[in-house]
Amino acid sequence: MTHDTAALMQKLGAQAREAAAAMRMADTRAKNRALQNAATILRRDMDEILAANALDIRAAEANRLDAALVDRLLLNGDRVEAMAEGLEQIAALADPIGAIDELRYRPSGIQVGHMRVPLGVIGIIYESRPNVTADAAGLCLKSGNAAILRGGSEAIHSNRAIAACMRRALVDAGLPQDAVQLIDATDRAWVGELLRSDDYVDVIIPRGGRSLIERVAAESRVPVIKHLDGICHVYIDAAADADKAVAIAVNAKAHRYGVCNAMETLLVHERKAARVLPEISRQLAEKGVEIRGCEQTCALLVDEAHVRPASEEDWATEYLAPILAVRVVDGLQTAMDHIARYGSGHTDAIVTEDYHAGQLFLREVDSSSVMWNASTRFADGFEYGLGAEIGISTDRLHVRGPVGLEGLTTQKWIVLGNGEVRQ
Amino acid sequence: MTHDTAALMQKLGAQAREAAAAMRMADTRAKNRALQNAATILRRDMDEILAANALDIRAAEANRLDAALVDRLLLNGDRVEAMAEGLEQIAALADPIGAIDELRYRPSGIQVGHMRVPLGVIGIIYESRPNVTADAAGLCLKSGNAAILRGGSEAIHSNRAIAACMRRALVDAGLPQDAVQLIDATDRAWVGELLRSDDYVDVIIPRGGRSLIERVAAESRVPVIKHLDGICHVYIDAAADADKAVAIAVNAKAHRYGVCNAMETLLVHERKAARVLPEISRQLAEKGVEIRGCEQTCALLVDEAHVRPASEEDWATEYLAPILAVRVVDGLQTAMDHIARYGSGHTDAIVTEDYHAGQLFLREVDSSSVMWNASTRFADGFEYGLGAEIGISTDRLHVRGPVGLEGLTTQKWIVLGNGEVRQ
Repeated sequence: MTHDTAALMQKLGAQAREAAAAMRMADTRAKNRALQNAATILRRDMDEILAANALDIRAAEANRLDAALVDRLLLNGDRVEAMAEGLEQIAALADPIGAIDELRYRPSGIQVGHMRVPLGVIGIIYESRPNVTADAAGLCLKSGNAAILRGGSEAIHSNRAIAACMRRALVDAGLPQDAVQLIDATDRAWVGELLRSDDYVDVIIPRGGRSLIERVAAESRVPVIKHLDGICHVYIDAAADADKAVAIAVNAKAHRYGVCNAMETLLVHERKAARVLPEISRQLAEKGVEIRGCEQTCALLVDEAHVRPASEEDWATEYLAPILAVRVVDGLQTAMDHIARYGSGHTDAIVTEDYHAGQLFLREVDSSSVMWNASTRFADGFEYGLGAEIGISTDRLHVRGPVGLEGLTTQKWIVLGNGEVRQ
Repeated sequence: MTHDTAALMQKLGAQAREAAAAMRMADTRAKNRALQNAATILRRDMDEILAANALDIRAAEANRLDAALVDRLLLNGDRVEAMAEGLEQIAALADPIGAIDELRYRPSGIQVGHMRVPLGVIGIIYESRPNVTADAAGLCLKSGNAAILRGGSEAIHSNRAIAACMRRALVDAGLPQDAVQLIDATDRAWVGELLRSDDYVDVIIPRGGRSLIERVAAESRVPVIKHLDGICHVYIDAAADADKAVAIAVNAKAHRYGVCNAMETLLVHERKAARVLPEISRQLAEKGVEIRGCEQTCALLVDEAHVRPASEEDWATEYLAPILAVRVVDGLQTAMDHIARYGSGHTDAIVTEDYHAGQLFLREVDSSSVMWNASTRFADGFEYGLGAEIGISTDRLHVRGPVGLEGLTTQKWIVLGNGEVRQ
């Protein structure tokens, strides 16, 4: 079995390499046509996709998977339509490939610049949401890459149906169907095999929970673009505008709970705490948010039923839930030290009207997004203008923060000469 | 011993992390002063450095190391002066850190842009040349990083003396001396320990021969920026200007032999071969270059003493020597297929006056540098205008081709708002 898996992976890999060579040269019109075809086919074959999804749902229920997982797995007319619209949006984005930047003459007479090119073969490992099959394939396609998709085993029928639509759409546009390949097996050995395929795969992007991502990061021989925790902070400075501070804190925590750019810890300057914390606490209580506060926070919000003392562990927890840790600090440096110690380098914000404090925070806080007077919830590919997002990277190399089409590309140097030789 | 190594590595790593936090915030003036101080101290302490180097040379001769290695190890007044000048050149470069690019308003009202920031802690693993200690430390310093240096054991006395100069120069500029740390031990276990230090080190840059780099790539848990082979090609198209073709081919091969951007294989269109190959052969013969030709090449250059038949292995060999493989091809596509099959993705050039052929070659050839009518020898950080070079990356992610200061940095997103919240 292991031998078979390895041989099959090599076959998939070789097919992906060949498709990647064609995709690298594919023109913008053909790539856009493939994306539009895919949207059309998804809508046309909706009944078949929903029938395939019903098989997955029935199996999930038989296996007593929990309700949240079944909901993530579920497709319906609206969700298939959203996939189709997502592909049309990707078609409408500018093509990053072939763009030449900063072509400049050098004293030797040569012109030197950069051309943006695809990464090559991208492996995507994801969990139960079947829409990732369309989204990830669409982004890889537009950026001129070949994709090898490995979805959750509980979504295998849905993923198979969606991948078939993507492959037909490629062929109809004159592009190789193997630019999108689904690993059509539920055996977990395949993940290990994909992670060892450094001869065929240029980068792996895992999308899912922490345990998946840690496994991928630990085992992969292929470079990984990954997202770990989002322990995001908002620091309300002594010089904060109180209205902005309250609005940002409430939005950053309570706009959505299960997202990586939600605030998990609020830091408040001791000179501002009495002015803003009671109002923030009141608004969060209305929304059913529990507060875990430091000693000063608890003293200030005494007798409030939703407030409890924080433990050391709270500062290091990504709740992804209606819970907020709150700490009163004696100044900007203590706030930045707290973020450096407990933060995850995802997104952190300061609220202040003070020029020096804001500038220092922007420079010193070493996170993928650093914000001044804005809600952490803005850390998102669409809000940043990328037009699409395959994930948010908490890595430092290659790409950091929200990853759009450009993160799926690299650059090569180009040199234009007129017969120049090195002296 | 292994336990000790691990504990000491953790100590070095923690010191580097702390120094990196300070270097990240260091202003341009302090960093430049440290570089200038280092140049001054290297010149002032030249006698001590040369005395330390003499110990290494004596040990190398006692161990009967080969003459080429002893030459790489040797320092003299000129070589120390060159190190000092190199540091002054780095001081004169623009500081990449803190630069904000493309700060743009979004429809939500926030401004979104990128700020360039250091990578953090950079591990450099190198072999016998002691000047790397100054060069690599200088580039890491200017780009706001902390460096952990692991030089060749045969250069330990020289490296220790040079690193001491760099550390004194940092302190004199008010910066932490631990921004430059030398692993002051010759035990090979240290390399493994450094490669496992993913908690403390953000990237490893190996500089040296293929076996070192392969070991680092295979073992490292830290991301690696690496350089493998340079099997560079020049393709002389049917529409090439013959004079340019001859000049470029001779320069690409014979300007220097032991460098990664030297041409190793010449591909010539069959309609141009009779026009250019005899002259190229004549000029290369004068320089003592041996030709290993395909059948058509040998037929064309019959009776020439420096011409032999090529074997399959020749197409895949980085000679780094006065040897050139030559193949006559039936057209552009065959040339590009040859490059895709045997090339190493380093640097490849076409010589042609034909617009379509040149454009196609630029787009399709997937190498870190692709050139049109210029010698492959231009693939170099100084020639490209980077002002300095820590190496040439044949990786695809993060940085590709010549790596200067910018390759030692990353970006974070910055968001400036006025109290905006997500709707």
